[in-house]
Amino acid sequence: MIVTIVNVHVKPEHVDDFIKTTIENHKNSIKESGNLRFDALQCNDDPTKFILYEAYISSEAAAEHKNTSHYAVWKDTVAPWMAQPRQGTTYTIIAPNEVTLWK
Amino acid sequence: MIVTIVNVHVKPEHVDDFIKTTIENHKNSIKESGNLRFDALQCNDDPTKFILYEAYISSEAAAEHKNTSHYAVWKDTVAPWMAQPRQGTTYTIIAPNEVTLWK
Repeated sequence: MIVTIVNVHVKPEHVDDFIKTTIENHKNSIKESGNLRFDALQCNDDPTKFILYEAYISSEAAAEHKNTSHYAVWKDTVAPWMAQPRQGTTYTIIAPNEVTLWK
Repeated sequence: MIVTIVNVHVKPEHVDDFIKTTIENHKNSIKESGNLRFDALQCNDDPTKFILYEAYISSEAAAEHKNTSHYAVWKDTVAPWMAQPRQGTTYTIIAPNEVTLWK
């Protein structure tokens, strides 16, 4: 299992657009066979900042996400709305380490 | 529902101690009635950096976590192992927003 945390900073005038488009990406991403979680969060202190918390069964499954059509649509749609480049960081899971507790 | 993401930077010589103590905190925290998730992650690029991903049913339940004995034990135990102060950031959940998908 692997988790990628993506930090996103959106231009203020596109916050609502970003939420709408990201919910669509969430709905499609959780249908991927290797996906365990795809949480989208908005920062309470700064509503222009978001986190995507993406858990996959393997690094291969995480990589496969970037080959999906819904990822491509999301990426191209949100590109002009970014206030700065997105930053993704990958993590190894310490706990819980039973896959059933992730899905 | 609310998510708190805690960024933790541990002194290199205490990484193993931190993992052991945090697994114990995880096991107790997921038993709290208001807890939805308590994921502990280790950064792949820098194994001295960790994320605690804590989801609670409400901000009151998240606050209550800090009154538990297991939190107190964890906090006091890890305090001398910190390379820098922990940073917690709270988030509003965009998706999934059905509570059953969180637990």
